[in-house]
Amino acid sequence: MPKPRPLYSRRGRVEILHGSGGRAMAQLVAELFKVAFDNAWLEQGNDAAVLPQVSGRLVMSCDSHVVSPLFFEGGDIGCLSVHGTINDVSMMGAQPLYLTASFILEEGFLFADLERIVASMASAARDAGVSIVAGDTKVVEKGKGDGVFITTTGIGVLREGIVLSGDLAQPGDRILLSGTIGDHGMAVLSRRENLEFDAPIFSDTAPLHGLVANILDCGARVRVLRDPTRGGLATTLNEIAQQSGVGMLLDESAIPVKKPVEAACEFLGLDPLYVANEGKLVAVCAPEDAVHLLEVMRAHPLAREAAAIGEVTEDSRRFVQMATRLGGRRIVDWLAGEPLPRIC
Amino acid sequence: MPKPRPLYSRRGRVEILHGSGGRAMAQLVAELFKVAFDNAWLEQGNDAAVLPQVSGRLVMSCDSHVVSPLFFEGGDIGCLSVHGTINDVSMMGAQPLYLTASFILEEGFLFADLERIVASMASAARDAGVSIVAGDTKVVEKGKGDGVFITTTGIGVLREGIVLSGDLAQPGDRILLSGTIGDHGMAVLSRRENLEFDAPIFSDTAPLHGLVANILDCGARVRVLRDPTRGGLATTLNEIAQQSGVGMLLDESAIPVKKPVEAACEFLGLDPLYVANEGKLVAVCAPEDAVHLLEVMRAHPLAREAAAIGEVTEDSRRFVQMATRLGGRRIVDWLAGEPLPRIC
Repeated sequence: MPKPRPLYSRRGRVEILHGSGGRAMAQLVAELFKVAFDNAWLEQGNDAAVLPQVSGRLVMSCDSHVVSPLFFEGGDIGCLSVHGTINDVSMMGAQPLYLTASFILEEGFLFADLERIVASMASAARDAGVSIVAGDTKVVEKGKGDGVFITTTGIGVLREGIVLSGDLAQPGDRILLSGTIGDHGMAVLSRRENLEFDAPIFSDTAPLHGLVANILDCGARVRVLRDPTRGGLATTLNEIAQQSGVGMLLDESAIPVKKPVEAACEFLGLDPLYVANEGKLVAVCAPEDAVHLLEVMRAHPLAREAAAIGEVTEDSRRFVQMATRLGGRRIVDWLAGEPLPRIC
Repeated sequence: MPKPRPLYSRRGRVEILHGSGGRAMAQLVAELFKVAFDNAWLEQGNDAAVLPQVSGRLVMSCDSHVVSPLFFEGGDIGCLSVHGTINDVSMMGAQPLYLTASFILEEGFLFADLERIVASMASAARDAGVSIVAGDTKVVEKGKGDGVFITTTGIGVLREGIVLSGDLAQPGDRILLSGTIGDHGMAVLSRRENLEFDAPIFSDTAPLHGLVANILDCGARVRVLRDPTRGGLATTLNEIAQQSGVGMLLDESAIPVKKPVEAACEFLGLDPLYVANEGKLVAVCAPEDAVHLLEVMRAHPLAREAAAIGEVTEDSRRFVQMATRLGGRRIVDWLAGEPLPRIC
């Protein structure tokens, strides 16, 4: 016997009244979100979640997710929206604890898809040990949205003594990268454009708080952690160079790129340095600690291909330069032109 | 001499590349958001804001705002998105401290409108003493959004000893309302439908944390505070009745409605009980404290027309009933049918 549709979804699709604040929305919250996210704070059923007291400085970050398509190899907008915010909180060295999730649904969106996305979020949050403690649902008319947009905000708590910031890189510091670049962007793009490559490309979307904890626990003097998402590795490194008032010199041959990603980038005329990642981080550390830190990173399942990719230089122009495979040097600029829209 | 357009906006409209993570986005963040919201946390320029340690339990809430039109009498999506989240945090009795703001922009949206909205947010946040400490900007293609959607998430801190929750209403408790109902919804609707009434209708959008502080400081035994937004007063009271397992009996003649709002509702066949408010609250308190609490509320500029509108009853069916002006009784049900979409 087929399972009866839940009360909120008797017609199978999102309707305007699911965002009205009335009975249909209450059913959607009670039968979908509360069941999937399953925690005491959502059960409170109030306008806001009352959380325990935390000790330590708070870290807070938010991200809207508008990725298109919603489902791709290796992930979907649901787990992506959880990982993205967990990672931003983690990059300051904090332990992520609580998330909020706000949904902007387009009228006519399939509840079957929403259910799949919500299940993916719930599972990503559970795996990372964070709770989705509050939420919101709005519905816009057909043609005024695009299926679903998800905004997550996360808070975490910072242990005593941890100071990470994009303005702390110093000349001589080493630049480590936790793995291959371009996987997420090319996974989304190849699904969007219906490109078939010999080997499928999987998004690297993953929560990095565990890797960050290992990095902080190992005693290395780490100055900066940052995840190279939109704009790719090139933009992230330029941001750090800008903030710290330094230059960088990268070694092209040291930057890991998966073969299928490299091939797809070449085919499309894209540079993997500018393609988004969702499960990678850059660590800038004191030169004496680089070897040890690299070992620690490689021992973590999400950073087996970690590599030392360059060093911080003194440069008042704040240029990120790269020693190319052919023996030359080139400037690696900020992403400037039109790139890959709606990649996260 | 006209002021030159800022760097991010040389063409005056949002382009896809403003959401790309590259240079155009960095300019938008630096020249618009950081300047308007102006605080040390945004200045950090990292993936997440590192905030001070707070003492007390945390309260966290989020809301997406998709109101249409973006500008209406008495407010706009900018101040609304600040007030909405401040109020949700305040309803738990917490002092709101920090907000995040995430923007989903439609390609082609006028920067002049975005600047106006951001200024309105900044001013609302400043007036309420909260800081917008982190943000995000995404851009979707023309026809995949609707100008701008804004999601805000707020955290606040709860003083020792304050326990408010929708499940604490007890038979005999009094129900107080801080002022007239329906103002916000009718202000938005009349602008959307280009309706001209004799007197203009202004949204009541306002931050309620100051009123809440006075309510909590006055010694009255308050069980529940809630702001009757989407779904209106009727839906909010039904939520409380449901959570507390009680009934309610309202006095229709005691519920304040402004004349122009009443006239507009009558003209459109709407019941003000179901129309959204953005600057009102319901307080449920012990019967002995109702007179004093009402005085305290009326002394605050945002609650001069506060009224005692009914009482909590014992009712296992959890019905909200109303003694009508004509001497009868009727059930005030949850909002069920299609209401006023995109009112917040």
